[in-house]
Amino acid sequence: PLELIIMYGGYQSTKQNLDPVYSQIIDYVTKGDGSGKAYKNLATFVDRFGSRKVGTQRLEDAISHLVSELESLGSLKVHTESFSFEGWQRGAESAELVAPLSKRLPMLSLGSSVGTAAASDSADGSIEADCVVVESFNELDRLGKAGISGKIVVYNQLYKGYGVSVQYRTDGASRASKYGAVAALIRSVTPFSIGSPHTGMQEYEPGLPVQIPACCITVEDAELMHRIYKRGDKVRVRLRMSCGSAGVQESRNIVADLEGSEKPQELVVVCGHIDSWDVGQGAMDDGGGAFCAMQSVRTLLEMGLRPRRTIRLVLFSGEEFGILGGNAYYERHKAELADKISFMLESDSGTFGPIGTTCSGSEATRSAYQQVLNLLEPIGATTLVPSTDGPDITVWAKSGVPVGDLLTKRAGQPDDFYFYFHHSEGDMMTVQDPAEMDRCVAAFAVVSLALADAAELLPRGISGASAGEDGLLSDWVLV
Amino acid sequence: PLELIIMYGGYQSTKQNLDPVYSQIIDYVTKGDGSGKAYKNLATFVDRFGSRKVGTQRLEDAISHLVSELESLGSLKVHTESFSFEGWQRGAESAELVAPLSKRLPMLSLGSSVGTAAASDSADGSIEADCVVVESFNELDRLGKAGISGKIVVYNQLYKGYGVSVQYRTDGASRASKYGAVAALIRSVTPFSIGSPHTGMQEYEPGLPVQIPACCITVEDAELMHRIYKRGDKVRVRLRMSCGSAGVQESRNIVADLEGSEKPQELVVVCGHIDSWDVGQGAMDDGGGAFCAMQSVRTLLEMGLRPRRTIRLVLFSGEEFGILGGNAYYERHKAELADKISFMLESDSGTFGPIGTTCSGSEATRSAYQQVLNLLEPIGATTLVPSTDGPDITVWAKSGVPVGDLLTKRAGQPDDFYFYFHHSEGDMMTVQDPAEMDRCVAAFAVVSLALADAAELLPRGISGASAGEDGLLSDWVLV
Repeated sequence: PLELIIMYGGYQSTKQNLDPVYSQIIDYVTKGDGSGKAYKNLATFVDRFGSRKVGTQRLEDAISHLVSELESLGSLKVHTESFSFEGWQRGAESAELVAPLSKRLPMLSLGSSVGTAAASDSADGSIEADCVVVESFNELDRLGKAGISGKIVVYNQLYKGYGVSVQYRTDGASRASKYGAVAALIRSVTPFSIGSPHTGMQEYEPGLPVQIPACCITVEDAELMHRIYKRGDKVRVRLRMSCGSAGVQESRNIVADLEGSEKPQELVVVCGHIDSWDVGQGAMDDGGGAFCAMQSVRTLLEMGLRPRRTIRLVLFSGEEFGILGGNAYYERHKAELADKISFMLESDSGTFGPIGTTCSGSEATRSAYQQVLNLLEPIGATTLVPSTDGPDITVWAKSGVPVGDLLTKRAGQPDDFYFYFHHSEGDMMTVQDPAEMDRCVAAFAVVSLALADAAELLPRGISGASAGEDGLLSDWVLV
Repeated sequence: PLELIIMYGGYQSTKQNLDPVYSQIIDYVTKGDGSGKAYKNLATFVDRFGSRKVGTQRLEDAISHLVSELESLGSLKVHTESFSFEGWQRGAESAELVAPLSKRLPMLSLGSSVGTAAASDSADGSIEADCVVVESFNELDRLGKAGISGKIVVYNQLYKGYGVSVQYRTDGASRASKYGAVAALIRSVTPFSIGSPHTGMQEYEPGLPVQIPACCITVEDAELMHRIYKRGDKVRVRLRMSCGSAGVQESRNIVADLEGSEKPQELVVVCGHIDSWDVGQGAMDDGGGAFCAMQSVRTLLEMGLRPRRTIRLVLFSGEEFGILGGNAYYERHKAELADKISFMLESDSGTFGPIGTTCSGSEATRSAYQQVLNLLEPIGATTLVPSTDGPDITVWAKSGVPVGDLLTKRAGQPDDFYFYFHHSEGDMMTVQDPAEMDRCVAAFAVVSLALADAAELLPRGISGASAGEDGLLSDWVLV
């Protein structure tokens, strides 16, 4: 179709040249009729359904509820896409320091962990053993089989950013098992603690001869045990975990399309995940992300804005349990959609005040995408960080589909404030702020509409790969 | 005795006029041989004895251990002073939201609370009832008997500073009971939460016809229940608490005197409390205070400094359970010591970086005491806040004895950071910082030695009472 193409000449001219619809969206969501809705709807939802571990009836009920809600809007094409997986369930669990003194150790079994019963010689299925406390895998390797066999390994790794430190949670049990450890207690992966354990997934290496129980303990208790151990005193722990396989289970991703008026086969995807861990409410991880993405689509509907391309909302399931829904979606749609998706925007690292998004792809991708982000200048969310972040969608980046994760920050708090609450009892509505969520909704709505209405798909590409550099920097146009 | 009296002419002249011993103390503790000792000794102690609830063998063992340690120094006169009290013990306990959804509610029974068994018609001794959620006593009163009878009252009071908000913890059960409530769930008194309950004392009003169970829940869950309640939905909770009286128990205050060389009958008292709540380690409340006070006396010994007046270290017991030790000490010694104590300095609000102390008494008291605080200029701890703070010693202020509480602050954190951890599983060594504790030790040592060596006792008095204004502002001298 013949289009009025407004060449985008640079940041300064945004306001005078571009469609005022973007500032109307921002105004509608942050101070108009749309304000407060994401928070209110999320609160109602998480207060009703609570935590939503994949494999629970509660999650499936929550998914059915959202499907009905989205269908009731009347303007979206809604369906679900099932996948199956090997489930896991938490059971009764406890840990206690028994020497040199008795102390309850608040703990949470880690996802996919075996329980203690198989290795127990006690009527209650518990195991008890002396501990070795290490602060790194290097230290573990130095101790070797002689130092570790028959012991419980306690990891007291310093927090050095989530991406670095989470390796102890995911790999700690496998690596300790190779040296004959009987269990692994892992310091919760958080920069700050008030005595709360933070759960999450752990993974047994394929082919590992013995799978040992793995749980997280608090930062404080890991440090306690480390101090005692370094003094040369015996650290002894009793551990009981009744978790284990829940057999084959099913869950569903939700897909809801706001169909494009001109290029309905081309897509912009906004997304978050609807499952959560089983502590707290999953209001932050990822209720906030899912509801801000959803509210952005509802906002466009409420404002009567019909995009030229289809804006697809995907609410993934099973993210916490190994990106089950994200991977299922990719496998199902990669061939069909790899050259039809302009951009995928997820939010899975908090819906505090938005400051920008990540963006994968080539320089051309990012140069073009920066023009879109500049539309968020009124809410201060124009920062573009090159990255393939966005747990459910990062897999698409290897097909050259540009993906991004919403970046947010709570004013006055450190950048990693999100991890204070992540996978803990503290992941409750209390961490959410209505005005911050509104700005996240605005970011989703503006970015997705701008990309849905742009003259072209975002330039494809993989960062650094010449194959990806198929767009010229000055070429891409925002209409 | 004839003394060289250095008239203190003002702040600027401190450094050139005053005995260099004060800066020597500061140097010794913050960068010399004394540095890191308070932290190290506290860690060894709390890691060995753990939490120290009054009435436990563990606390009595810890007290005996400290008495031996203090005696082994060879230069202190050490004794203990027993007192008895009606004890209380925690039992198995749990709370669960049962409607509109099932959710475990992390909780802690409050000190002195009755259990649920007496009012239970269930085999496990639990009670279950619908909830009313209020955010203030005014709201409770408006609901009255008609709205509250037979219900569990949930208090979701906003945190408005510890002193204001703690009234809901102390009085919440009694006030709800008068309207026929069957239990009280109280939002933990903290400005910030990661899903942790904070325990503490509650008090039944004398003569209350029915004593009902009282426990704390998390900030997040109080807000959750309040949101549900405000939507008009039923909030229903099952509560099981097996706590109750532990009969008559005994504990002991520790008193250790570094005898004065010239006026051994006159005292400066440095103190903290050695008991703690039964969650975490009591490393902050009040391990830090007790060990900084103790280390200050050890510092004077190590440096060979003999004060002119006696510096008395008191490690109180039973503070958490109604200031039992502090009150016992006062009753035992008020007649004998009211005119012999120059000053009592406690630390029971954290041993982060010291910024000054409170000081009770008359204007004359504070004017004189400010001269002492100015000696702490090298560590930036010269702030004097008029107040009778210092839980174990505030009772002495009514006898005209000047008392103070060490004021501290963690850099980059809010003033009430202490209450993030207070009475929670987060009260562990992790909150302590060695360098901050060193400066607290220095503050204790400098203030106590300066007052022990001063020409006179600090001017007596009660703030605002003319009877207390018996010192002239320019009169008091620091030698």
